[in-house]
Formats: sequence, C-alpha cells, structure tokens
Amino acid sequence: MALVVQKYGGSSVADAERIKRVAERIVTARKSGDDVVVVVSAMGDTTDELTDLASQVTPVPPGRELDMLLTAGERISMALLAMAIHNLGYEARSYTGSQAGVITTSSHGRAKIIDVTPGRLRSALDEGAIAIVAGFQGVAQDTKDITTLGRGGSDTTAVALAAALHADVCEIYTDVDGIYTADPRIVPNARPVEQITYEEMLELAASGAKILHLRSVEYARRSNLPLRVRSSYSQKAGTLVTGSMEGLSMEQALITGVAHDRSEAKITIVAVPDEPGAAGQIFDAVAAAEINIDMIVQNVSTEGTGHTDISFTLPKGDGPTAMAALNRVKAKAGFKDVLFDDHVGKASLIGAGMRSHPGVAAKFFAAIGAAGVNIEMISTSEIRISVVCRDNDLDVAVRALHDAFELGGDEEAVVYAGTGR
Amino acid sequence: MALVVQKYGGSSVADAERIKRVAERIVTARKSGDDVVVVVSAMGDTTDELTDLASQVTPVPPGRELDMLLTAGERISMALLAMAIHNLGYEARSYTGSQAGVITTSSHGRAKIIDVTPGRLRSALDEGAIAIVAGFQGVAQDTKDITTLGRGGSDTTAVALAAALHADVCEIYTDVDGIYTADPRIVPNARPVEQITYEEMLELAASGAKILHLRSVEYARRSNLPLRVRSSYSQKAGTLVTGSMEGLSMEQALITGVAHDRSEAKITIVAVPDEPGAAGQIFDAVAAAEINIDMIVQNVSTEGTGHTDISFTLPKGDGPTAMAALNRVKAKAGFKDVLFDDHVGKASLIGAGMRSHPGVAAKFFAAIGAAGVNIEMISTSEIRISVVCRDNDLDVAVRALHDAFELGGDEEAVVYAGTGR
Repeated sequence: MALVVQKYGGSSVADAERIKRVAERIVTARKSGDDVVVVVSAMGDTTDELTDLASQVTPVPPGRELDMLLTAGERISMALLAMAIHNLGYEARSYTGSQAGVITTSSHGRAKIIDVTPGRLRSALDEGAIAIVAGFQGVAQDTKDITTLGRGGSDTTAVALAAALHADVCEIYTDVDGIYTADPRIVPNARPVEQITYEEMLELAASGAKILHLRSVEYARRSNLPLRVRSSYSQKAGTLVTGSMEGLSMEQALITGVAHDRSEAKITIVAVPDEPGAAGQIFDAVAAAEINIDMIVQNVSTEGTGHTDISFTLPKGDGPTAMAALNRVKAKAGFKDVLFDDHVGKASLIGAGMRSHPGVAAKFFAAIGAAGVNIEMISTSEIRISVVCRDNDLDVAVRALHDAFELGGDEEAVVYAGTGR
Repeated sequence: MALVVQKYGGSSVADAERIKRVAERIVTARKSGDDVVVVVSAMGDTTDELTDLASQVTPVPPGRELDMLLTAGERISMALLAMAIHNLGYEARSYTGSQAGVITTSSHGRAKIIDVTPGRLRSALDEGAIAIVAGFQGVAQDTKDITTLGRGGSDTTAVALAAALHADVCEIYTDVDGIYTADPRIVPNARPVEQITYEEMLELAASGAKILHLRSVEYARRSNLPLRVRSSYSQKAGTLVTGSMEGLSMEQALITGVAHDRSEAKITIVAVPDEPGAAGQIFDAVAAAEINIDMIVQNVSTEGTGHTDISFTLPKGDGPTAMAALNRVKAKAGFKDVLFDDHVGKASLIGAGMRSHPGVAAKFFAAIGAAGVNIEMISTSEIRISVVCRDNDLDVAVRALHDAFELGGDEEAVVYAGTGR
C-alpha cells in the first residue's frame, strides 16, 4: 500500500461537474488500496473574483487581510471536494493549511514553508479517510496569522506535505498530458516525455516551461520525492520527475527538449564607461527596485572608445520600473542611453547528456543559423543553451532545434525530454 | 473608555459600498475613544450561494464539510471589512471564530458555545486595533473541527464575546430602527421602543418577533449584558434590552407591545380516548420526529363520549413530518383523525406590568371580540397572552390590541414595548 499525494489546480475543480470528476479519480486511487492526500486550489476564477472585491474596498489591501480573504477560495473548493467524495461512499475530511500543519514565515502573500506537522492528516489516513488539504496557504509560526505562499503555492504545498508524510509519489494534475519535447502548438511532432530529472525540470521551468514552478521542483529535489505531472482529463501516465534515470532505457538521452519564453524583455545600456564598478552601479539600481534579472551580456569594449554596451533580460511587466530606476542613475553611472525592447523571445535547449557531449553547441548554432534566425544574446549552463532572438523568429528557432536534435521523428525510442506550454 | 461589541448582519455588508459605510460607522465609534470588537455575518446571499454549490455536489452534504464550506462566507466579509477600516487609517485585524476563541460543541450546523477564550482579541485591543470577528462559527472543543452555530448564530457570537470581554454594551445592527410596539407595516402608528427587559424580549422573540433570536437574548440575560438593537442605516438610538428599567421613567408600563406570527400551523387530533396516557403517546410520537411544539390545548371531554380533541401549533414546515408521525400511531393511540390547518395566525400581547394588573386579560378578550375575531386557541404566561385565530383575521386582531392598550396614540410618554417585524 502506497501513500499518494495528488494536487489539483483551479481549472480541474472549476465547477461542480469537474469537482465530481476529480472525486471519482481520487476514489479510484483509494480503491486501489493507496492512502490518498489531496491538495486543491481555489475553484477557477475564485481568486481573481476575491482580489477584485478587495480592490473595490481599498486600493492597497493590507497583506494579512488579503491572505485571510484569498484563503476562503481553497476553503470552498476543498469542502466541496470532500462532499463529492462522501457522495461516492468514501470518508473524506478537508483541512485548512493551518489544520494540516503547514507552518510558514509571516511574509503575507509570499510566505515560505518552514515546517510541516501533518499530525491530523496522519490520523485521518490511519482512520481510513482521504485527507483534502487547502493548497497555497499556511499559518505563520510567530504571529499565528493565516498566510499565502504566492505563485505556485499549491504545488509547493503538495510537495511539502508529500515530503513530510514520506509519500511514495506526488502527482501534480494539470490540463496537459505532462511534459513534451517542445510545445506541441509550435512543434506538431513534439513527443510526450516519460521521465526527466529534477535538474532538467528546473532548467525547463527557468526557461519558460509553465507546468511546474521552480520552487516546488526545488523542494522535491531536496526531499528526493518523485513527482508525476499528468492530466486530470485523461488516464495517460504523464511525466515522472525524479533524481535519476534508473529503471528506464540504458541509453542516456543527449537532449531532453526545447523550451521557449515570450514573457521577457531586453534592456540595453548604451556606452557604459569600461571601468571597474560601472556594472555594479547599474545592477545595484535594478536590484534596489526588486527586479529579477535573467540573462546578462556585456560586449568587449569597442576598441579605442573606452565604452561598452550591457544588455539584460527581465520580465516584461518589470520594464517600466527598471527603466525608471536606470534613468535615475544615468548621470552618476556615466552611460549614454537605455533602450527597452519587448519584442524578444528566448529559445533554450536542455539536456543532462550535454555535459559529456561538446558537439552540442556547434550543432545548436548551426541549426539556428541555417534557419536564418539572428542571435542577440547567448547564455549557457552545464545542461542548457539559451539564445535571445526577435520574437517573430522564436517559433522558427524552436522548430529548427527540435528537428536538428531529432526530438520528434518516428523513432520508438523513449526520448527523455520536455518543455512547457 | 468603553468596550463596545458591534454586530452587523449580512444585509449590512452585502456589497463593497455597504462594507465601506459600515467601516465608517466603526471608525466613528473608535474615534470616540471606545475599544471596538465587530462581529460580522457573511455578505448578503453568500451563504445561500454556498449552500447551492453544495447541493450541486451532493444531496446530503456531511455536516463537518458543510460547516467548512459555509464558514468561508464570514471569512470573506470580515477580511473585506478589515481592509475598508485600514483604508480609513485605522488598524483592524480579522479573526475566525476559532482564532477568536469561540469554543463549541461538535454538533455541526447547530453547535453550542461552551467557552470563549478571547486572548487574541484582547491583545489586538490592547495594541489599539479594532478586532473583526467572524460570526456564526467556532471550533469544536473535542475534534478541533470548524463548526457553525445555526440560526441566529452571529447574534450569539456577538453576545458571547461581549460577555467574555466584559463589554459595556453589545450593539446588534439590523435593517430596522429597533423594536416597535407592533409591526409598523400592520399598525401605522406603532412607536419605537426605547428600552425593554430581557424577559419581555424573550417573550417577543418566542411570539414571532424576528429581530433578535431567543438564544442570544438568553445568553445576554445570563450575563446581564445590555443589548442595543439599532439600524445600520440611521443614527437613531434604537432599543436597549436590559435586566431592569432603572434610569427610565418611574412609571412601569403596563404593556410593552403586540407581536404576531404567521409561521405556524395547527394540528388537531380528533376524538382522543379520554384516559391516562393518551396524550403521552401522541406527543411521544411528535417528539421522536424532533418537532418543536408551541401551544397545546386540550378540551374537556365531550360529555358521555369519553373522547376529547387535542390541538397544538408547530412550525408550518414541520407539518408533513408531524402528520406522518401521528398517522403511524393512530391505531395504537386510538384516536379518530388528524387535521392539519396552515391558515392560522397568532397574536400576542406582552408586558411585564401584566403581572400585577389582573384586568389585562378581560380587556384583551373584549378587544378581540369587538373586532369580530374568533379565537381558536389561547395560551398565557406571566407576562404574555396569546391567541390563535384565522390568518386573515390576524392584522385586525393586532390593530385591535394595539389600540385597546393605547400603545400608539400621540402621547409623549415613553412606552416600554416592542414587537418584531
């Protein structure tokens, strides 16, 4: 008998009919003899509706009260799901984050889990019940106030509970059939991926894949907890995310997949004095504005001028704030101009096998070049190569890479790969 | 500096605009120097909407989960109210029933408060904050599960917190200006009542007045806590409910007001054997069906027949259940027939002064008779006389009593009286 933690997102429980379908899936798992803990998000648009209500009352809701408000969302979905399971003849009990023992920091809206004390869940399981837990929420260790975990919070709740309960697997249910070698909407012959490592998944998530959040994958890796990403609308096995590729084909795949990202913009700082401390002043200003930078590229100094250009990418929405911060330090840092460009895209090739195959980069750039795509920035890690190009070249670049590394094709061999959609 | 507990019902916080108005009223009280604890119900139709969602998922929701679901309603209203107060520059913190220390039995849907441990509220007040508490809910002492208090629960929450915090007054905000000598929709010259005793208020509530629930008035009486019933839409003082009439006019009013009730039906059991144990069998059957009976009347045995008729009143909605239960014992109890009549009404005259004025009953029946209203049942207490009549005679009866006891009129004298609407 295994212990399974299942997580269902908001679209999987958007209305009464979907809640009943999810209940049937949960009961199927329970019938097979497994202990089941379910983590659930708020129904469909509930969180948006509650946020809208708050904005009707005040332009700047205090964090403590906004968390109190938003946590009503999962309270509704979890109670309804428990009822739907009861209606199928199985015992189910719903628990808030606080009741489930999800102890967090007191940073409202972006709290971090610091401890999990799932005593009540354990008791419920011991008594044969299915435990339903509100995702995305916890209780602050010091203030005892209700907190929310921020983006990807329900995935993190599921992984944290699974780790604390020593679950055999944590299943993340979503609206796609798992991880693909590329976004099937861009690459029609993209293939589903059977298995992938944590580090590849982390690179995929950081490269634009939206299926799992970095935070939950990190948590799973630290706990060495197997994750399975699968659809709540099909019976397909989905993609297993684990620490090693043991148990699969002996041959380590070279490349796992191609990811893409249209959510970033590029800022170029023109004619920065080529002297120590110049870059420091610039990035201090951006950091003070609490902006997360992705790639940074600095050209070598144009001969004789004593100046260089620095480019970096950042989330599009942070563009105005970053530009304002940079313009404020323009005179002091001594650069000439700042340019904002939100018509860029990023294509990334990810594969753990890349480490021991030096030819990958050459093939990568040959493919991009042959496709007629101009590269604006390059960034690499041990298991990833990313390029920034024009946004309207992005689909071409993704298809060229997918073809060049033969990720689609007709082969029957399992390809360890994946990308978000 | 006083400590005031204010309770706002669902219609007072039905949308963002009303929540902002209530916030202003609360801030006004805080500005005057008082410590303020606010108990709030769910917004407008939220509870009905959540109940409807539950019915889409299962015909018989388990009580534990239904309570978990419904308590999301106050969570939303209290967080929004705290935000609205923040927006006016005052510190406010919302607390669930559990956080506020409302400890209950574990009877889901109709839990009883068994203890109140308002440590967190006290701390919030000590730090200068306004405490907002979810009405209608608590946490079970034994199971630690979330419970709801059932009908009138938010009033009871307010009174219980006020008693535990030794508040100076508990203000119940509603959509009418307090207690009237009769329902102004029936009696146009009905007058607002300034002050009334707990026992009169209890008789009024039991006689059909809907403003305060029996339960919260009982609780206030036990704690000797002054209640003030007033409108959230006006600045009028409303009605003070206390243990004694001290501080008001020296003259104890004879009569407090006229209440009416259209919510009951009458059941008549025909030709019951006039022998010991007959009534017992009948009322055992009704009690086993968990039906609350109001008035009971048994005629003297019709001479020579050895049989008598028994009539009683009960909530209309319980009629079918009661009829089924009675028909099941018909043969065994030996009566001839059961008749159901839901076209009855009840008019009640209430007044603490009645005790020492034996002429009240004579005047009462003279007034009813002169109005041409036929009396079907009579019931009295020390401070109340009630009659059941045809429902279409009820308004006439109420007006006749109100006039006979001069409760309206043009006098300036304060009339201690009241009735529901």
